[in-house]
Amino acid sequence: MPRWSPNGRDRLVDAAMELFRERGYEAVTVNDIAEQAGLTRRSYFRHFPDKREVLFPDTSQHMAAITKEVAEHLPDAPARVAVMATLTQVGRFLLRDVDAQTRRQDLIDESPELQERERSKLAEMAAAIKTGLTRRGLNSIEAHTCAVVSVEVFRSAYLQAIRSHNSATFDAELNASLMTVSRFVADA
Amino acid sequence: MPRWSPNGRDRLVDAAMELFRERGYEAVTVNDIAEQAGLTRRSYFRHFPDKREVLFPDTSQHMAAITKEVAEHLPDAPARVAVMATLTQVGRFLLRDVDAQTRRQDLIDESPELQERERSKLAEMAAAIKTGLTRRGLNSIEAHTCAVVSVEVFRSAYLQAIRSHNSATFDAELNASLMTVSRFVADA
Repeated sequence: MPRWSPNGRDRLVDAAMELFRERGYEAVTVNDIAEQAGLTRRSYFRHFPDKREVLFPDTSQHMAAITKEVAEHLPDAPARVAVMATLTQVGRFLLRDVDAQTRRQDLIDESPELQERERSKLAEMAAAIKTGLTRRGLNSIEAHTCAVVSVEVFRSAYLQAIRSHNSATFDAELNASLMTVSRFVADA
Repeated sequence: MPRWSPNGRDRLVDAAMELFRERGYEAVTVNDIAEQAGLTRRSYFRHFPDKREVLFPDTSQHMAAITKEVAEHLPDAPARVAVMATLTQVGRFLLRDVDAQTRRQDLIDESPELQERERSKLAEMAAAIKTGLTRRGLNSIEAHTCAVVSVEVFRSAYLQAIRSHNSATFDAELNASLMTVSRFVADA
């Protein structure tokens, strides 16, 4: 039995992670997840539109917060400073349970279907950053490019922290990843 | 009737573009495309795995060429120089018929389904560049990040050239896009 949880969504996520680990992502159905969580298929679909989504946090509220932080953090500093401060917060939030994130990433790494969904989620994050950057005065084209670069810097640092099983390295990885981009485009 | 074409694949692409423009992407079926091209549904699926793919060029051979060019172009120059030279060639190749590319991009811009496929194609291109960069001596993590940044620089320049209906601006747009990244990450 899954451990008690007051929240249907959390129970479904826990049940899914447990079943995916036992049987692999492909072999598990939505019905299996609902049953394991002691809920119905119908309540599963009240929380998630499909099987993939159970592995992705509900980010609708976070996206608005990301836009606001990028737009408003230290308004006179370079845009990069606001983006890096925002990404630091996002990383710390996601990595508060680094072991759970590691198990989740292992599942994604094995499934092209999940990788496709992950790309969509990263594109959403880039869109949120882009909106924040346009509010700082960047034009739409520049904002898009800088947002995509920022998300890649984030993704790389996040993966490094997960692979080292150490959330404390995230801030350093974020700076190292930015430095990698900086060296690559230097004297352009 | 579609204009005569010696090649089934080209006939299907032309037929699809014509029907998508008339009726919109969603309303057209694979059967419609095959019929318009004077071919069978079965021969459609010999060329393309699904409806989306008819809008994307067959890039399997190009990817190997991209890897090789990134790995081998001016081996003593900075990696960025090799990537930019490679992207310039890819852009010139794709933009040899800028009007067709504009119509294609208009369809993609209207369909989340096509945008998802486009993201997958850009991820393939990033993987090809990444492999080339590792052959130049970058580690896997750095190579991944630099490849994603490169693809974004490319995508931005390509869209700008399409929107201005002028393939001649591509090289300048490519440099401008790289400069945007450079300014963003400066004094990191």
